[in-house]
Amino acid sequence: MKKSGRKVFFNGEFVDELDAKISIYDSALMFGDMVFEMTRSFNKKQFKLEEHIDRILMGVKVLRIPLQYTKDELIDICNKTIEINDPYFNENDEHRLMINISRGTLGLYSHLFDKQESTVIVSDFPLKWTVTGMDVLYQKGINAVVTSQRAISQHLLDPKIKNRSRVHYQMANIEASMISGENNWALLLDEDGFIAEGTGDNIFFVKDGKVITPEGRNILKGISRDYIFEICEELGIECLEKNITLHEAYSSKECFMTATPFCILPVRTLNKIDIGDKVMGDVTSKLLKKWSDNVGVDIRQQIFDFNQDFKNTSGGSTPYSFNS
Amino acid sequence: MKKSGRKVFFNGEFVDELDAKISIYDSALMFGDMVFEMTRSFNKKQFKLEEHIDRILMGVKVLRIPLQYTKDELIDICNKTIEINDPYFNENDEHRLMINISRGTLGLYSHLFDKQESTVIVSDFPLKWTVTGMDVLYQKGINAVVTSQRAISQHLLDPKIKNRSRVHYQMANIEASMISGENNWALLLDEDGFIAEGTGDNIFFVKDGKVITPEGRNILKGISRDYIFEICEELGIECLEKNITLHEAYSSKECFMTATPFCILPVRTLNKIDIGDKVMGDVTSKLLKKWSDNVGVDIRQQIFDFNQDFKNTSGGSTPYSFNS
Amino acid sequence: MKKSGRKVFFNGEFVDELDAKISIYDSALMFGDMVFEMTRSFNKKQFKLEEHIDRILMGVKVLRIPLQYTKDELIDICNKTIEINDPYFNENDEHRLMINISRGTLGLYSHLFDKQESTVIVSDFPLKWTVTGMDVLYQKGINAVVTSQRAISQHLLDPKIKNRSRVHYQMANIEASMISGENNWALLLDEDGFIAEGTGDNIFFVKDGKVITPEGRNILKGISRDYIFEICEELGIECLEKNITLHEAYSSKECFMTATPFCILPVRTLNKIDIGDKVMGDVTSKLLKKWSDNVGVDIRQQIFDFNQDFKNTSGGSTPYSFNS
Amino acid sequence: MKKSGRKVFFNGEFVDELDAKISIYDSALMFGDMVFEMTRSFNKKQFKLEEHIDRILMGVKVLRIPLQYTKDELIDICNKTIEINDPYFNENDEHRLMINISRGTLGLYSHLFDKQESTVIVSDFPLKWTVTGMDVLYQKGINAVVTSQRAISQHLLDPKIKNRSRVHYQMANIEASMISGENNWALLLDEDGFIAEGTGDNIFFVKDGKVITPEGRNILKGISRDYIFEICEELGIECLEKNITLHEAYSSKECFMTATPFCILPVRTLNKIDIGDKVMGDVTSKLLKKWSDNVGVDIRQQIFDFNQDFKNTSGGSTPYSFNS
Amino acid sequence: MKKSGRKVFFNGEFVDELDAKISIYDSALMFGDMVFEMTRSFNKKQFKLEEHIDRILMGVKVLRIPLQYTKDELIDICNKTIEINDPYFNENDEHRLMINISRGTLGLYSHLFDKQESTVIVSDFPLKWTVTGMDVLYQKGINAVVTSQRAISQHLLDPKIKNRSRVHYQMANIEASMISGENNWALLLDEDGFIAEGTGDNIFFVKDGKVITPEGRNILKGISRDYIFEICEELGIECLEKNITLHEAYSSKECFMTATPFCILPVRTLNKIDIGDKVMGDVTSKLLKKWSDNVGVDIRQQIFDFNQDFKNTSGGSTPYSFNS
Amino acid sequence: MKKSGRKVFFNGEFVDELDAKISIYDSALMFGDMVFEMTRSFNKKQFKLEEHIDRILMGVKVLRIPLQYTKDELIDICNKTIEINDPYFNENDEHRLMINISRGTLGLYSHLFDKQESTVIVSDFPLKWTVTGMDVLYQKGINAVVTSQRAISQHLLDPKIKNRSRVHYQMANIEASMISGENNWALLLDEDGFIAEGTGDNIFFVKDGKVITPEGRNILKGISRDYIFEICEELGIECLEKNITLHEAYSSKECFMTATPFCILPVRTLNKIDIGDKVMGDVTSKLLKKWSDNVGVDIRQQIFDFNQDFKNTSGGSTPYSFNS
Repeated sequence: MKKSGRKVFFNGEFVDELDAKISIYDSALMFGDMVFEMTRSFNKKQFKLEEHIDRILMGVKVLRIPLQYTKDELIDICNKTIEINDPYFNENDEHRLMINISRGTLGLYSHLFDKQESTVIVSDFPLKWTVTGMDVLYQKGINAVVTSQRAISQHLLDPKIKNRSRVHYQMANIEASMISGENNWALLLDEDGFIAEGTGDNIFFVKDGKVITPEGRNILKGISRDYIFEICEELGIECLEKNITLHEAYSSKECFMTATPFCILPVRTLNKIDIGDKVMGDVTSKLLKKWSDNVGVDIRQQIFDFNQDFKNTSGGSTPYSFNS
Repeated sequence: MKKSGRKVFFNGEFVDELDAKISIYDSALMFGDMVFEMTRSFNKKQFKLEEHIDRILMGVKVLRIPLQYTKDELIDICNKTIEINDPYFNENDEHRLMINISRGTLGLYSHLFDKQESTVIVSDFPLKWTVTGMDVLYQKGINAVVTSQRAISQHLLDPKIKNRSRVHYQMANIEASMISGENNWALLLDEDGFIAEGTGDNIFFVKDGKVITPEGRNILKGISRDYIFEICEELGIECLEKNITLHEAYSSKECFMTATPFCILPVRTLNKIDIGDKVMGDVTSKLLKKWSDNVGVDIRQQIFDFNQDFKNTSGGSTPYSFNS
Repeated sequence: MKKSGRKVFFNGEFVDELDAKISIYDSALMFGDMVFEMTRSFNKKQFKLEEHIDRILMGVKVLRIPLQYTKDELIDICNKTIEINDPYFNENDEHRLMINISRGTLGLYSHLFDKQESTVIVSDFPLKWTVTGMDVLYQKGINAVVTSQRAISQHLLDPKIKNRSRVHYQMANIEASMISGENNWALLLDEDGFIAEGTGDNIFFVKDGKVITPEGRNILKGISRDYIFEICEELGIECLEKNITLHEAYSSKECFMTATPFCILPVRTLNKIDIGDKVMGDVTSKLLKKWSDNVGVDIRQQIFDFNQDFKNTSGGSTPYSFNS
Repeated sequence: MKKSGRKVFFNGEFVDELDAKISIYDSALMFGDMVFEMTRSFNKKQFKLEEHIDRILMGVKVLRIPLQYTKDELIDICNKTIEINDPYFNENDEHRLMINISRGTLGLYSHLFDKQESTVIVSDFPLKWTVTGMDVLYQKGINAVVTSQRAISQHLLDPKIKNRSRVHYQMANIEASMISGENNWALLLDEDGFIAEGTGDNIFFVKDGKVITPEGRNILKGISRDYIFEICEELGIECLEKNITLHEAYSSKECFMTATPFCILPVRTLNKIDIGDKVMGDVTSKLLKKWSDNVGVDIRQQIFDFNQDFKNTSGGSTPYSFNS
Repeated sequence: MKKSGRKVFFNGEFVDELDAKISIYDSALMFGDMVFEMTRSFNKKQFKLEEHIDRILMGVKVLRIPLQYTKDELIDICNKTIEINDPYFNENDEHRLMINISRGTLGLYSHLFDKQESTVIVSDFPLKWTVTGMDVLYQKGINAVVTSQRAISQHLLDPKIKNRSRVHYQMANIEASMISGENNWALLLDEDGFIAEGTGDNIFFVKDGKVITPEGRNILKGISRDYIFEICEELGIECLEKNITLHEAYSSKECFMTATPFCILPVRTLNKIDIGDKVMGDVTSKLLKKWSDNVGVDIRQQIFDFNQDFKNTSGGSTPYSFNS
Repeated sequence: MKKSGRKVFFNGEFVDELDAKISIYDSALMFGDMVFEMTRSFNKKQFKLEEHIDRILMGVKVLRIPLQYTKDELIDICNKTIEINDPYFNENDEHRLMINISRGTLGLYSHLFDKQESTVIVSDFPLKWTVTGMDVLYQKGINAVVTSQRAISQHLLDPKIKNRSRVHYQMANIEASMISGENNWALLLDEDGFIAEGTGDNIFFVKDGKVITPEGRNILKGISRDYIFEICEELGIECLEKNITLHEAYSSKECFMTATPFCILPVRTLNKIDIGDKVMGDVTSKLLKKWSDNVGVDIRQQIFDFNQDFKNTSGGSTPYSFNS
């Protein structure tokens, strides 16, 4: 194993990244019963950390996980984790935190363990792992592919509780991987036939001068998705939630995906039908520029730079991954 | 930590039970993307092991997990695990195996690890952990409770692939725990309003002299469920699959649950409405007796004995758990 | 039988309350084919009587009941009924009218009766019968319980036609009564998994400073529900209809129920998960105060007083009932 | 009022038919919360009385109505009612019993009444009231009309519990009455688009030599429907339940309705499309003959005779009604 | 055959109207795989031609039909067709264009034909063929009839792509034709039970001073429908999209249909229940007047005049047809 | 144009194949309102012609098309058409009839035409046009691809009425064409998530020694599909209808498609997951052999021979088409 020096907060201790492991008797593994968040920094400053913590605490509440930490303590843990790991990050790296909370080992196995408590884990790794290779998407755009896999309705398994029971997202990814050509990303319809979300991203359209996105029902309400509303307001662009059909999508002028690691990526085609007439539409560009300005990082350039670094050091290429 | 001596097979090695842990970067944790099986022995002889292996391999195939072991090798691993652990089991203990297979660490984290391979884990622990405390259910019967949580339809997330994305079962369990009185077990309807399954068990009814159980659609098709069909055939009792409504359930003469650890448990009431006129109906008793005879273990008595042992040694009582 | 002196308007006559009975051959009984309203007074002055009459006439129209009275005549009947009964009411009593209209006896039985006409009944009884015992709910709040019983969709049986075919509300009440603890009130989701209504009340949430309530689709559009919109406007609080999911409910700051007899009652928990951080939130309190001010009755105090009276006179306690 | 001498059993007493009335405060009226049965005799001997009683008791159980009578007592009450009324019946009349059970007055009104008990009513009237005028249907056949009103799914409001919350049947009847031409009877599809039932009758088709009828799911499982299975077995005709689509119906050779009062009536057209090539097909005729033979009454002739009597005595004509 | 002189544009040529025929091997016939538009003129000037062309091009895009003409060329073709045909039109006639585009003959038959290209057809006939006989509807109003035939959901077959696979509209028309009385037009609910559209027209209601129409989801978004929004804005009347239930419809004050040939027609009754209190409500009249003013044609008078002409020339009457 | 000599029956006349065209004013084109059949011969003898005629007449009945021909006349027309065309067929060719029936020109256009009658067309072309190129599928097998396009439910648009409103099949074909690799054929799930059918073929699976196929509900009940039941009976193989889920499909041992032109083609993979362990399973082979024996044509060899002919004559290759 290649030790990196990075440490992971694990129920009160900092352990080596490679030792950050969860017991097979933990409810997280037994039931996919774990809520999580994945954040990022801009210039090493966490973005919307409080919002991420609020969202995970909402999940903790609904799943009735008894938690030994307060909101403030969780924020402290995050900050402490970054502090400990920063020495092992490059100067131009960004901190991507993964926060996991499960209710711990199931009752019938609990006698094996010293204490019965929730499992709380915070790891910290370079953002570039996630976004390297995505620069091509700014040039070519994503082909969003509607899969036969539908989104699960909120009353059956609520996607707004960001939890680990989501193998159906893997199924959708597998399906998208069977499409010919490149840059195919899965897009799920919900059971009503409305556009829902990608498997790790929210989708937006620009139509009639307005920015629209699916109602926050059968989707994860992404922190990035929320931020688009903020930026739009700053820019004086109307942004609203709607039930969006494929027809409305096809007749849009622009389309883009949002997620924490890459912020905004253009969608060029939907089921290989052109959306608008260029890779990245004007409104999308404006939003990406505003976001970059607001956080003091040229988001697209940064991904380009990560990619260059990677090519220089490894001489190879990594296909991007998309988990937010 | 309390070391027991028991070992868990973990990707080619046998590690201490307490060290059987999965990386936080494993797809099992990231996506609930792991298939699993839980078996049991009768008189220390595994029951239907091949059927369990066949089922997990079916899941491996549908989830497109590249697996480094053949079916025969998996069976060997199970047997080897039992052999290694048997010295640490009591004479009257039964071996409960848990077999887990995930596709391993996600691509973006794989460079951290020496090799990229599927995660294959076989653990082995005493069955009594699971069934101790359940003897009361033979005396009082379960109260099956229809929860507002519905089963997820097979075309959204197939319950027949026994996988770890099942936090909705936890939600149903939490809901059942809010019912007044004792021995409340969750029972899920599917989206069409038909009776589906419990959160770790299949349900059967006896009506008009026939044994009926929900169609194998929006449920896990349990190995124990299959075995009921076998026993019924041996006993000359007609056993069939049906779409079962609540009305049909209420008008049944008997009802029982099946699952690997306890085989058969009587359901006395459904939403507190009596099913039939005694705790365990005649057909149910006959089936339990036949099963006991076939495997050479008095199943009910064994659970009673486990409970007595437990009371003698711990002086306390453990509420039963229900994971099949 | 205990004669009270109160009279009920019954197809043109005033009969003793205990003689207000409907033939078993009436369509009301044969088909649950009767529309109704239940009103209340404040300081003995009917509240929104015209709105109640308009609503029942809408039901009369859709059910194609041939009605022998005009709107004005119906209002006169109500007023006359109150006038006749008032002497038998205590000074602090309020008049609760029940108005029933069915199409009368079915055709095949009509030859038994002198005339074939619609059945029109107006009864008048003290409001305290309904609300006595509810004062505890202002102190502890309701625990709203999502039942497995779903609301029936409007295109199958329209809840906006306030009619008597509603045994499913009874089923939901029975289900809620099985929850452990006290003050459990049923809350129905509709077939789409959105929050619909209680079995005799509408639900509101306060979130992001706004008052929200389910769209008027698969619910009864309560007169009290309408009045909340009025009060909100008077107070300058935004109030709007939405499709509301459980997640949105759990993440609200306040929640309350409305219905004619009690006006507003706080919901403290939803499926035993806390909503907000106190029994009755600030906005809810403000709305109740405004309503009280508008009608010149301290609504909460009145219920408290009714309860005291009841305890003084009967020496016992009545569980509240909830029929609006 | 025209007193007939007939008496109705009403909670332990026999009251005049015109005095058989239910308090407006009874749950039967407040919630449509009443189960019921309607029977008939052949040659004054009740048909399948025990099956009717069993069915109503199943409804009592599911609705959790506390009932003060046993099954045997209910049968005694029915017999006693017939005995008392028989003197007022003509020689050729048949006894049509209506049995009603509700949980009685609601709690909040119960203090008005001497005792709080379930409401149990048995009335007895001549069958001819129901079937007079139906003889034309044996000559012309019914035109079954698929209404836009759908059957309510069993998990929302179970039609197998024969209860009074069924104003949607009235709505369907109103819809059918708008079709041009005569003898239009409503036929409901369920929410899945399968043929369900009429508003007071079950439907059968003859196809490929087999008798088929919708699965017993979103329909009332009629006693007459059950009897068709019995007769078919006696005649050596295969009879089975199926999910039946409109296409299957249109391509059938025969179609008929069953209900207690008329037993079997032919359906000539479905949405005005011919089913088969004559009004009453051979299998239907055979079934009606067998039924007549079994009960010792020429069912069709009896309805014809009732009609003649009616014309002789009243000089008018009554449109048939259809309540089973 | 009666030659009229009128010519139809047919893949580059102008052929006689009676020779405008499509090969049986064309995808249009094999799969109903053709998009189309039907326009009209006012005073011989095409109305919203560009909008019609835009809509058909959207259909061409989604159906992936390779088209040999640009938008401008299509407009030229339309204008040229009118120019050629105008000599054969009466002075007071209006030009009704029908534009058809299919992908041409299927691959397996293509070797029969000289070239493989899309089929593009533009015909031009007098509007009066369509609207003659409709003047009675301004006097009596339409009776909109909710059929058991539901609208097909947009994710199954998108009505917003105006295509020829719409035999279900014929089925709905047949159903409406079975209603007694006159002027019955089919109205489809969608699968969710919301009001969708007629079989060749969009529906609007006037309620609380607002003009409302179903959300543009499971309906064709008519050009006339869009124009109502425009006129409303000009008149300062609020006009909005909503999910509209039957209850909302019944409680409206006015109702009307829109479609290209007749623009606006009043709906007097819905399932024979009165909407409002006169045939054509005030808002509807105002909208029709505004439309007439805007286009310089008294729309209602023109239809009346067409009818008079027809009666004068043919001495007979034609039932109106309704295809938009 | 290349005249072939082949003639098409067209409403009483035989016209040249290239002149077989339908007016743009025909309901077939206006509404996709046409039923059709496509047959084939074996050794120039029509196969199941009567069954095809029966099926089209069923469609005629449900669509209420007034038809000027009897069943016997239609059969005569088919035979006459073959007789006339046979001289233009090669010795080894097979006759593929296409029979089309629509209700003719719409009423508003009918005055243009001499008579108003249904449109009845029978064309006859060589089967090889359809199956040439399919021989590769016997070697490699089809990859069946579940599309996001779902089958339309029978109560919305009945696929059992073989009609021309089926552009959604084109949409599914387009979707399948986007999958990487070759031999991808669309497979539609119905709205319940069950496997329905291909876009011109029915699907069968072999499992547990039985041949299973989807219930005849949301699919076309193919004549070939029916014939598989016949052959199975001859071979003593159990063949039955079931609701089939994807899981059941994945765990099958064999899979094949049926349709008139090719009879049986093996499905090797489903969503690229292997079904069984060879291209064409033993049962499938047995069925194909039996079919070949029964009709006196080696079906697979014939397709191979057609292909060789084609290559010899045209020097090119035609991708197969799939319309049944």
